[in-house]
Amino acid sequence: MPRCTVVRRVHFNAAHRLHNPAYSDEWNRTTFGPCNNPNYHGHNYELEIVVEGPIDDATGYVVDVGLLKQIFSEILHPVLDHKNLNLDVPWFRDRMPSVENIAVYCWEVLAPRIPAGRLTRIRLWETPRNYVDYEGA
Amino acid sequence: MPRCTVVRRVHFNAAHRLHNPAYSDEWNRTTFGPCNNPNYHGHNYELEIVVEGPIDDATGYVVDVGLLKQIFSEILHPVLDHKNLNLDVPWFRDRMPSVENIAVYCWEVLAPRIPAGRLTRIRLWETPRNYVDYEGA
Amino acid sequence: MPRCTVVRRVHFNAAHRLHNPAYSDEWNRTTFGPCNNPNYHGHNYELEIVVEGPIDDATGYVVDVGLLKQIFSEILHPVLDHKNLNLDVPWFRDRMPSVENIAVYCWEVLAPRIPAGRLTRIRLWETPRNYVDYEGA
Amino acid sequence: MPRCTVVRRVHFNAAHRLHNPAYSDEWNRTTFGPCNNPNYHGHNYELEIVVEGPIDDATGYVVDVGLLKQIFSEILHPVLDHKNLNLDVPWFRDRMPSVENIAVYCWEVLAPRIPAGRLTRIRLWETPRNYVDYEGA
Amino acid sequence: MPRCTVVRRVHFNAAHRLHNPAYSDEWNRTTFGPCNNPNYHGHNYELEIVVEGPIDDATGYVVDVGLLKQIFSEILHPVLDHKNLNLDVPWFRDRMPSVENIAVYCWEVLAPRIPAGRLTRIRLWETPRNYVDYEGA
Amino acid sequence: MPRCTVVRRVHFNAAHRLHNPAYSDEWNRTTFGPCNNPNYHGHNYELEIVVEGPIDDATGYVVDVGLLKQIFSEILHPVLDHKNLNLDVPWFRDRMPSVENIAVYCWEVLAPRIPAGRLTRIRLWETPRNYVDYEGA
Repeated sequence: MPRCTVVRRVHFNAAHRLHNPAYSDEWNRTTFGPCNNPNYHGHNYELEIVVEGPIDDATGYVVDVGLLKQIFSEILHPVLDHKNLNLDVPWFRDRMPSVENIAVYCWEVLAPRIPAGRLTRIRLWETPRNYVDYEGA
Repeated sequence: MPRCTVVRRVHFNAAHRLHNPAYSDEWNRTTFGPCNNPNYHGHNYELEIVVEGPIDDATGYVVDVGLLKQIFSEILHPVLDHKNLNLDVPWFRDRMPSVENIAVYCWEVLAPRIPAGRLTRIRLWETPRNYVDYEGA
Repeated sequence: MPRCTVVRRVHFNAAHRLHNPAYSDEWNRTTFGPCNNPNYHGHNYELEIVVEGPIDDATGYVVDVGLLKQIFSEILHPVLDHKNLNLDVPWFRDRMPSVENIAVYCWEVLAPRIPAGRLTRIRLWETPRNYVDYEGA
Repeated sequence: MPRCTVVRRVHFNAAHRLHNPAYSDEWNRTTFGPCNNPNYHGHNYELEIVVEGPIDDATGYVVDVGLLKQIFSEILHPVLDHKNLNLDVPWFRDRMPSVENIAVYCWEVLAPRIPAGRLTRIRLWETPRNYVDYEGA
Repeated sequence: MPRCTVVRRVHFNAAHRLHNPAYSDEWNRTTFGPCNNPNYHGHNYELEIVVEGPIDDATGYVVDVGLLKQIFSEILHPVLDHKNLNLDVPWFRDRMPSVENIAVYCWEVLAPRIPAGRLTRIRLWETPRNYVDYEGA
Repeated sequence: MPRCTVVRRVHFNAAHRLHNPAYSDEWNRTTFGPCNNPNYHGHNYELEIVVEGPIDDATGYVVDVGLLKQIFSEILHPVLDHKNLNLDVPWFRDRMPSVENIAVYCWEVLAPRIPAGRLTRIRLWETPRNYVDYEGA
């Protein structure tokens, strides 16, 4: 049975600020530059959900990409979209809301809910010019 | 002498919130939905600066697009990039920071500084799926 | 009061075939080439809904682009998405389902429903390399 | 001798329908939703042909990407472009024309014809928001 | 009879150098910066051919975009693609090969050959971040 | 400690010519076709710098993508941007300036300068339709 990787892109936008309270204000300004702006800034995030598995004979699917979108819409979109990651998302209370960590968060929420196949990668675009890949711990 | 329109795309990202304090909280929630989130959200903005004029014989240019980028970098980027439009940009103190009004603001700042030709349009993308065109008052 | 043009992109995909029964099969094959394939072919269409009007002081909006998406989702998407334009859409019974005419159709359906401002253009991409603009009769 | 992976993107568009005749109509409607529309729908497919191998000293090439395009144009484009995958392509008579299986088909046709290097992946975009990777059996 | 604008995108790449021999080397270096490099540099150009006209009842076309591509392939592509605009294209012997003037050149070659409708615009992208529009003299 | 891959896209444009002086002119014309044009042609290159490593607890970063851009701007951009690869870049004196070899060159320059994590891939787009991946020797 052939195996295949299936990818669905979804979208959210959010505000955040990079600031680590365990360090001095000067360290934060030097380390994060404009990303340390106290009043936040924001991004349009494009998220790719990457699922690997055997192609089902009956459907021709590894997984229905419509289901991937629906799962995102039900469990991640309400938490992330049009939110302030620092203030509105408890998971980031003690973690930096960098694009790396947002990808880890998306993985942790999505991995147990994939209805067929296996989540093998989260690709997260923060701007059209930078993105990260996270493939699990 | 042939005339031509020249366009340069530039980038900034920012946080904002749509909330009109002259109206009730309920009106604001109903009118703006998730864009009314009190803790802000944000976007990657792509800005197109559109300049029209005669093609100079000596240079072949209407305007040097490198200059357009430099003007943006010097006078708009420091005000808008990695900022909270509601809190950090005085012009929005009594105006909604909608994509429409951000385009008007960019026009007002840029129009008097165009070094050759004439600013004829600001195109501003708020997400990959919506943008506005503003062509002056 | 400044005026502005607001654009919302939406998506649908469909099958079609270019064949004019008033002409011979040979004329159809010569005129439409592979687009005349009797068993249909298809496209991902990207539709831009372009609305012009004054910027409302209270909202900063010409029109809420969320409403534009909702109107599309309610009245055009169910008719066009995942459909065969020749067989499933009555409007094309006596018109060629060319990208030009699909744009005219979208205009006719959308123009009377725009909740604020005025529809000034339909831009319809048939492939990443060709699109049309229709601005009304 | 350094090794490298070379990718060429090509394009085709086609109609298809997801329907498995071994199952009931209701199962098909539930499983495939709008993709089960009896009159077909369609997509613009973007295909990436991914070839890995040593960089030839004389040419600097792993493989001439112009040849990859020519092979596609000669052996895959005539079979897939502007076609109905269910009705016009025999390989899909007893397989679902899902994007997963179309990628498998492209692999089977292309893998034995790669003129230098080795086909290591087929990436196939069905819409701008979903794609698959197939890397062989 | 409804009228419509039809656009076809095509591609070429070329080398050029911005240098006006009527001026001093220093003026050229100051005016054109890195674009004055004596050994040339280059770009991937994306050209949009924009044609306006009535929609033909029999075909649903303003103009067959396949014909637009064919005309480009026969009369512009052989002159511009993989060429050095300064050295290989006589029209630029006494004109600067700026993106503005390349657009004018494309207009002059294409306008008399449009098989239906009327060329109303040449849009020419020099990079993903700058482009020009030329609409004739 | 979770690990992640971080990618930053940067841009340069350049002229080049594919011609191997160890072979006859006819071999060169046949092998490289239009890429052998004696007067050069050119491209807009999009370069993706791919770095893998542990996510730092204090910053949430694998590596600051702003630093990746700065390193590119300081050590690669001055050598490649607006240059003729054959004439202006010594490394290509005895190597073909194919996109494969340009990727190898970028790797060799960048790999020792990555300030955190480890360079794992260079992805280099030569046109919107072809790119290469190089992952080191």
